[in-house]
Amino acid sequence: MRLILIGFGNLGRGLARALIEKGNFIREKYSLAPSVVAVADEHGAAIDVRGLSLEKLLEVSEKKGSVAYYPSFGSEGKSSLEVIEEVDADVVFELTPTNIVSGEPGLSHIKKAITSGKHVVTSNKGPLVVAFRELDNMAKKRGVQFRYSASVGGSVPVIGLAQRLLAGNTIYSIRGVLNGTTNYILTRMEKEAAPFDVVLREAQEMGIAEKDPTLDVDGIDTACKTVILANAILGVDKKLSDVSPVGIRQIRPEAIRLAREAGYTIKLIGVAKRDSLEVGPRLVPIGHPLAVWGTLNAVTFEMDLAREITITGFGAGPRETSSALLSDLIDIHRSVGE
Amino acid sequence: MRLILIGFGNLGRGLARALIEKGNFIREKYSLAPSVVAVADEHGAAIDVRGLSLEKLLEVSEKKGSVAYYPSFGSEGKSSLEVIEEVDADVVFELTPTNIVSGEPGLSHIKKAITSGKHVVTSNKGPLVVAFRELDNMAKKRGVQFRYSASVGGSVPVIGLAQRLLAGNTIYSIRGVLNGTTNYILTRMEKEAAPFDVVLREAQEMGIAEKDPTLDVDGIDTACKTVILANAILGVDKKLSDVSPVGIRQIRPEAIRLAREAGYTIKLIGVAKRDSLEVGPRLVPIGHPLAVWGTLNAVTFEMDLAREITITGFGAGPRETSSALLSDLIDIHRSVGE
Repeated sequence: MRLILIGFGNLGRGLARALIEKGNFIREKYSLAPSVVAVADEHGAAIDVRGLSLEKLLEVSEKKGSVAYYPSFGSEGKSSLEVIEEVDADVVFELTPTNIVSGEPGLSHIKKAITSGKHVVTSNKGPLVVAFRELDNMAKKRGVQFRYSASVGGSVPVIGLAQRLLAGNTIYSIRGVLNGTTNYILTRMEKEAAPFDVVLREAQEMGIAEKDPTLDVDGIDTACKTVILANAILGVDKKLSDVSPVGIRQIRPEAIRLAREAGYTIKLIGVAKRDSLEVGPRLVPIGHPLAVWGTLNAVTFEMDLAREITITGFGAGPRETSSALLSDLIDIHRSVGE
Repeated sequence: MRLILIGFGNLGRGLARALIEKGNFIREKYSLAPSVVAVADEHGAAIDVRGLSLEKLLEVSEKKGSVAYYPSFGSEGKSSLEVIEEVDADVVFELTPTNIVSGEPGLSHIKKAITSGKHVVTSNKGPLVVAFRELDNMAKKRGVQFRYSASVGGSVPVIGLAQRLLAGNTIYSIRGVLNGTTNYILTRMEKEAAPFDVVLREAQEMGIAEKDPTLDVDGIDTACKTVILANAILGVDKKLSDVSPVGIRQIRPEAIRLAREAGYTIKLIGVAKRDSLEVGPRLVPIGHPLAVWGTLNAVTFEMDLAREITITGFGAGPRETSSALLSDLIDIHRSVGE
């Protein structure tokens, strides 16, 4: 299968490393031989229809700052849209940074990939909170696969679990601890009885929280993921503007202590139902599978037949995310038999 | 899709009820119209190629003790093997009781279904711990689907999660709380500091433990499920005789208390690795996703890319199991496009 990678930051490079590490495994187990025929970043692209060297892509990108400097096959200034349109390939991986307002540049990349008849795998939440239903319908109409497992839960296959493995159930609600940074902060606040500001600073120093922590601590990242889960699993047509998230800045150690004495822990939870989306701090009983610690993510589905199922794992990190990207690729390979 | 149900006890009747309840849902969502053309139990069978009434099957079975008394289409003494061989159908549900020594009668039913070109969905652990690889190879050779999600975890799609959604990963180990009865007993022993015998008797009175609790409390049921997980997910060829299970009879409340003081809980765990299968009581850190309470089941996969993922839910009960049976049916429908 011929792949195009759009975006070669942490996630793109993580995928390249996973393809190097798991190449033989995938070939032997699934008779799938992925060949990366083009990679584009913000400075340009590298294109070779016979397949680029993943090792060389990583080296050039890390040493010279762009895949455009790939020897012989690099091309400065070549745009991602041109690459998607012009290069013959089976699957486009859209791995550029998330923009939750416009969805760009990912939105245009995905549309171009679909209209040029290529399957799409993305980790990019932007296009999914801006135009989920439009993209899903476009892909169905054009007869290509559109996969986005990596956009929610990192390595935790939340969407596939609901879509594929709980197929006989009517899902009433989805509740999730969807943001590892805030879960880490709340866990530290609980274990050390420390105030939010102190723990946030510590998390920033450790690289767990960003310098501008707004997207995480104000619940916006959780809101994005809640919107995606609702669209993908409950079949609704929601956008980020349909949620009014409440974050964790106002939570005091005393509140956490009182909750704990009553047998609860406080988590930042996204709740998706067919007719409502909510994001905010919620009490979760200690011992409930959703009461996970540290940077873990967890999602609970409430259903008619299976009642309640929870899945837990590591949401973040390029290596963890490559697990979801590779699984989407293998699943496309199985579905289309290429 | 034309279905044959072999076995019409709790699980078979549970599936019939789920098909009644979810018939419209499945038709609308998956364009799948299941029609039960034959049902067999130990006294006989009911056969109608135009489709039997599920309501009538339930009524006849509950009031008269066998589907053989289904008006006009019932037939006393008709054997399951005859039904599987003679009736034209797409899928056979093998739902007879588990026999872990011979695998019978399920083993013969499944072989007959495969050789007569029918897909198989089963909840029966017997054939899977006696002849997993043989059956899997037979099905592949004959070009039919062989599904057994319901045999481990009840409603919790443990096998599908590993086979389908973690496909890019090399799975190193599978650890599971796989038996709800023992987990209930250990939970009560921990919460009430009560001895094993007392809690077992209470569980028997509540119907959570069987009168003869050997299969559960001596770890044999957990061993069966561990064998199935190893075969289905790690690709090995193991049988029940490859495990020497240790049960929970010897666990004293003092041991549980000491574990708890050190931050652990004691669970009956099945561990499957490529080169070893173990079943016995193990310490699990409190707060780990595997440390689930009551009758919950939980399975943790340890992998290269996604590191660690845990799935949790209700393992037992005919309604929960019908969730797995229906999901297998829908997945076969998707795979073969019938």
